[in-house]
Amino acid sequence: MGATPMRPARVVVLGGGFSGLYATLTLLKELAGSDLAEVTLVDRRNYFTFTPLLPEVAAGTLGPSHVCYPFRSLSKKGRLHFIQGEVREFDLDEHVIGIENLAIPYDYLVVALGSTPYFFGNQELESHGLTLTSVADALAIRNHVIRLFERAVVERDPIRRRQLLTIVVVGAGPSGVEIVAELHHLIRSTLLAYYPVDASEVRMLLVDGEDRILPHFARELTDAGRTQLVERGIDVKLMTRVTGAGAQHVELNAGREIIPTRTLIWTGGTVPSPVLARLPAKRTGRGTVLVDECLRLPDHPEVYVIGDGSHVMDRRHERPYPPVAPVAIRQGVRAAANIVNALEGRGGEPFEFDFTGNLVGLGGGMALVNFLGITFHGRLGWWVYRMAYLQRLVGAKNKALLVLTLGLNALFDRDISCET
Amino acid sequence: MGATPMRPARVVVLGGGFSGLYATLTLLKELAGSDLAEVTLVDRRNYFTFTPLLPEVAAGTLGPSHVCYPFRSLSKKGRLHFIQGEVREFDLDEHVIGIENLAIPYDYLVVALGSTPYFFGNQELESHGLTLTSVADALAIRNHVIRLFERAVVERDPIRRRQLLTIVVVGAGPSGVEIVAELHHLIRSTLLAYYPVDASEVRMLLVDGEDRILPHFARELTDAGRTQLVERGIDVKLMTRVTGAGAQHVELNAGREIIPTRTLIWTGGTVPSPVLARLPAKRTGRGTVLVDECLRLPDHPEVYVIGDGSHVMDRRHERPYPPVAPVAIRQGVRAAANIVNALEGRGGEPFEFDFTGNLVGLGGGMALVNFLGITFHGRLGWWVYRMAYLQRLVGAKNKALLVLTLGLNALFDRDISCET
Repeated sequence: MGATPMRPARVVVLGGGFSGLYATLTLLKELAGSDLAEVTLVDRRNYFTFTPLLPEVAAGTLGPSHVCYPFRSLSKKGRLHFIQGEVREFDLDEHVIGIENLAIPYDYLVVALGSTPYFFGNQELESHGLTLTSVADALAIRNHVIRLFERAVVERDPIRRRQLLTIVVVGAGPSGVEIVAELHHLIRSTLLAYYPVDASEVRMLLVDGEDRILPHFARELTDAGRTQLVERGIDVKLMTRVTGAGAQHVELNAGREIIPTRTLIWTGGTVPSPVLARLPAKRTGRGTVLVDECLRLPDHPEVYVIGDGSHVMDRRHERPYPPVAPVAIRQGVRAAANIVNALEGRGGEPFEFDFTGNLVGLGGGMALVNFLGITFHGRLGWWVYRMAYLQRLVGAKNKALLVLTLGLNALFDRDISCET
Repeated sequence: MGATPMRPARVVVLGGGFSGLYATLTLLKELAGSDLAEVTLVDRRNYFTFTPLLPEVAAGTLGPSHVCYPFRSLSKKGRLHFIQGEVREFDLDEHVIGIENLAIPYDYLVVALGSTPYFFGNQELESHGLTLTSVADALAIRNHVIRLFERAVVERDPIRRRQLLTIVVVGAGPSGVEIVAELHHLIRSTLLAYYPVDASEVRMLLVDGEDRILPHFARELTDAGRTQLVERGIDVKLMTRVTGAGAQHVELNAGREIIPTRTLIWTGGTVPSPVLARLPAKRTGRGTVLVDECLRLPDHPEVYVIGDGSHVMDRRHERPYPPVAPVAIRQGVRAAANIVNALEGRGGEPFEFDFTGNLVGLGGGMALVNFLGITFHGRLGWWVYRMAYLQRLVGAKNKALLVLTLGLNALFDRDISCET
């Protein structure tokens, strides 16, 4: 009792998306059984969302319980504190974070606040676009689409009926491709079986300003994916900009084409979370924060910024790492390992990641896979896709539920109940 | 082609609760393969809700998919049209119903519009009471309770912490008893394991103006139920009226006791759906519609009114049948059979039902059962309860899901993710 024991270092992780979750998991694992540090995770929700499967939730293939994992389930396993709340302010000089009414002191801080949809300042698109970043978003899209079919059944005017049955998805990245494919599959496999609607009146569009879908994928794979979508009857409009929207239409190429529709699903762009703007740090024009190669703020080496809000150069390819889940996961692991290094008196190691693996599900048992430089698609791709996600899903319960649900889906039609 | 074939009679069922659903199911079954009639079901939601299991949804034991059954799944099986919409007006002389913008003609009409929570005109109770009549209600209660625990964890003032951890349930009928028991079980079995909260700070109250819980049950069973609840630490306040509420408190007995709380769950009373007030018919002071012994309006024998909105005398017991699911189901079957009788030129048969079976779940594998005059409680009661519900759940998918989920619940803790 003579010497005062060292108090544990306080490590605070802000945000429990992929990067924050993996930073937390790595810290808990590396610090297990040690008194070096206490870890506190802060998020505005009390659960992790497995966002890559949100298109399946929107299509009713999976339910919310398959893609949500409560953070407190981690706290049983180690020295984790969890606080549900929004980050209000950063005091980097005093080493304190304001979370609603609480002031949380830290010795090491991991800022992993993610991104939010970006509409390029277009108010019309922001008002009328449905986004797909949360379980609530996914359920809202699902309810909206099913409600459209309920209305189409009793609509006698064919023009208004076609408008109800037209779905426009903007953005041909992985989210946009998956949501258009999953909704197409929902409509073909289930809704057209239950609703007296003529299949020829259903129209689905995928719109993007670039000349290809899935720009981060190998060219041959994106061509295969596009062919797949077009063969299913999805209208893939490339080099086309969405310039406006109302309750009854979407405007393309500054008015050169008007699509009558009640449904604009927006996956057209993201920006770093607005909360990140309160962090006193240098940033790029996009709002991402400039960090050193060890993912730290140059002026505050005890502060790590990771995930979609971080600007990290990939030196081998002379471009910044893209804001995608595999990069976020690796950055979370790297930041946590560097904090453990610092706690144990070692120097930091630079972040490096050879980003080659990629998965996009196309619904109905098809997927595009780009894994370690090998690309394949079709039904084999789908199995790799399922197995890969099963590996990554966090909890044993989520895995068990997913397997059971995929089994039930094979036996039964999907649930078409909707909230009004 | 000489004689004009008889057109099928148009049977319209308004409302897809227990009584409307069973009227529809009976009509589809009795009319299968016949051209006598076409059946149209109208509901503001596109799915049936198995309301007796909503307390389990509120406690996270079951998910929405276990208790929802899309009406269109029935339309695959027979000659059923479904329309999602709200009833706006009744024209009994012209035999037309207004559903939003549609005018629906009928030859036979079944009015099964159910009931809605009633607050005895007390505006405070209506503003602050959480109800439990839909899946959305159940999820709102679940999210609210979990959010309270998230807030309690970071609340340093013990008085405010106790306020956050106090739950008041009003009404000791089956819904009130089940929800207080299920939430108690959720808190004891799951939340106290994950949240650093002192169990002694959690307080749960069940309040009712009568001198007993479960007034429709046999006395010995209600005594056993009350003992169960009290032994678990639930404060059962009988002969106590809830007279007011605010964001921070509930007022009992006109101010003689104030309970500091953020949570008032209201199962204290119901009235017939306000839509029923537009039906031109004689009604009681409570607003229930007077029908003849065959469940028809005396002036319009082609119009049947059934379920919670109907006033039917139980002649053997000299009292009206209570507004409970078993009565509603039997009335649906009776009304449908009488319509088939009329279509086939036979007279109507009076509604009679010896209402003896009753089930109340107490959470954690316990239930009270009153079945054909035999009463039992405890773990045996729970098995009867589960088996009885499994029999009644409408679809094969719901049954399969329920069995799988009960199995998963035995293996894993319940999901504590909450929407904010």
